[in-house]
Amino acid sequence: MIFSPKASGMEHHVPDPATAIDWARASNDLVHRVGEQFPEHFVGSCQLPQTPNGSMEVMVAELERCVEELGFVGCNLNPDPSGGYWTSRPVTDEYWYPLYEKLVELDVPAMIHVSTSCNPNFHALGAHYLNADTSVFMQLLQGDLFADFPDLRLVIPHGGGAVPYHWGRYKGLAERMERPPLEQHLMGNVFFDTCVYHQPGIDLLLKVIGPDNLLFASEMLGAVRGTNPDTGSGWDDTKRYIERAGLSDSDLDKVFEGTARRVYPRLAARLDGWNR
Amino acid sequence: MIFSPKASGMEHHVPDPATAIDWARASNDLVHRVGEQFPEHFVGSCQLPQTPNGSMEVMVAELERCVEELGFVGCNLNPDPSGGYWTSRPVTDEYWYPLYEKLVELDVPAMIHVSTSCNPNFHALGAHYLNADTSVFMQLLQGDLFADFPDLRLVIPHGGGAVPYHWGRYKGLAERMERPPLEQHLMGNVFFDTCVYHQPGIDLLLKVIGPDNLLFASEMLGAVRGTNPDTGSGWDDTKRYIERAGLSDSDLDKVFEGTARRVYPRLAARLDGWNR
Repeated sequence: MIFSPKASGMEHHVPDPATAIDWARASNDLVHRVGEQFPEHFVGSCQLPQTPNGSMEVMVAELERCVEELGFVGCNLNPDPSGGYWTSRPVTDEYWYPLYEKLVELDVPAMIHVSTSCNPNFHALGAHYLNADTSVFMQLLQGDLFADFPDLRLVIPHGGGAVPYHWGRYKGLAERMERPPLEQHLMGNVFFDTCVYHQPGIDLLLKVIGPDNLLFASEMLGAVRGTNPDTGSGWDDTKRYIERAGLSDSDLDKVFEGTARRVYPRLAARLDGWNR
Repeated sequence: MIFSPKASGMEHHVPDPATAIDWARASNDLVHRVGEQFPEHFVGSCQLPQTPNGSMEVMVAELERCVEELGFVGCNLNPDPSGGYWTSRPVTDEYWYPLYEKLVELDVPAMIHVSTSCNPNFHALGAHYLNADTSVFMQLLQGDLFADFPDLRLVIPHGGGAVPYHWGRYKGLAERMERPPLEQHLMGNVFFDTCVYHQPGIDLLLKVIGPDNLLFASEMLGAVRGTNPDTGSGWDDTKRYIERAGLSDSDLDKVFEGTARRVYPRLAARLDGWNR
């Protein structure tokens, strides 16, 4: 399990940089402690000390500490540290480039994930998270970030927000905006997880987005805890949905393991070490 | 065709109330003129003179003028007149109640639709529209608006944003938040359109959301103009997708006409008049 501090508790809207640094370090150190105690189960992915329009330098420093000193394999990147007011620059803006340079240098991906919402219009779990996934995908479509960072890898959670459901919209917009086809423009660098909590949603995701761009994810004490009374199993028990979707064994292997190994090479190296 | 002023051109972010009133009246009068010239093809749905946190009184007055004097059958309601900064109150807030009272009195629905985005984080067509659909559905889930307005009807466009794809998430959240089941809590009053531009998306929509809550919609000079090179037909030619989804004739009738007649009774009355 790739274990990060709880995304909704990152508190990036608190504007004081010293608080952000202390909170990120404390959270990451606790995750590291769990990983040290149960190394066969957990590997870390770090929280960055973000603040609205804050310094990239402190983000880079904490990423470097977590990967090089604590053995973490990735990080969360919050595209809206304001917490629902979206006062920062799009992820394609050069503001973010020092972080991307470090991600590429360390060969770790970033999961795009907002934190809590301070805006009463956006419920964190039912709107803000999905909106962020959708918005960032569209920012990437508009821009050309991976021309500058061909080795950068970004993971968009919650099954890509609204994107796979509206795949025709995005394909059409890419054409209208004279961007290359999405497969070529984005899908060498952008990956979605499988946090979609019903069978029709998973079926669509697996059909529209191939297994080379999908990483298995579920939740533990996440947004949608509890049991679906119609099925008797947990809403977030995504393994069951995926197993019932009729994939070939090799595609199942990719979704459950292969794609994650490609996107998180430091995780793959660690697993290979265990297997030796 | 239910014809409204172009949603992306409503310009509700311009803060001057007099400009908003003039622009709404001019736009609605033009729509009316088209309807007068081609009455067998077009019926009006109006733009409201919204401004960020502006007066409900002017909105109510323009709605009344358009329905009673111009024969319009509905309106667009912008849940974010700030244009991407989301500074207004959720649609369940009592701020909006005078408009809802008038909608119920006139027996016309509102289509929830934002206008253009002034926020560089949100592409209007590829992010802001879908985010608004998703956010408003979640606001309605959190609140209890239809206890106060049991006859109010709201149409959410773009196939409900991210909602049908994440239907399990919303069902699970409703349970976790101790709301009634969605069918009972919302689906007597909330309707989605069919603006989803590929077959897998339409298949999911029709499977997850029944025909009693779906209204046929396509676009004309809309977000996703142009031809899908894989199919040779327009991205937004949604009729083809729906016809291929395997619905029964009676369900097809609902999606293409029956549900729209229920949601827009003033349209039904007008069509019945033509048929006599």
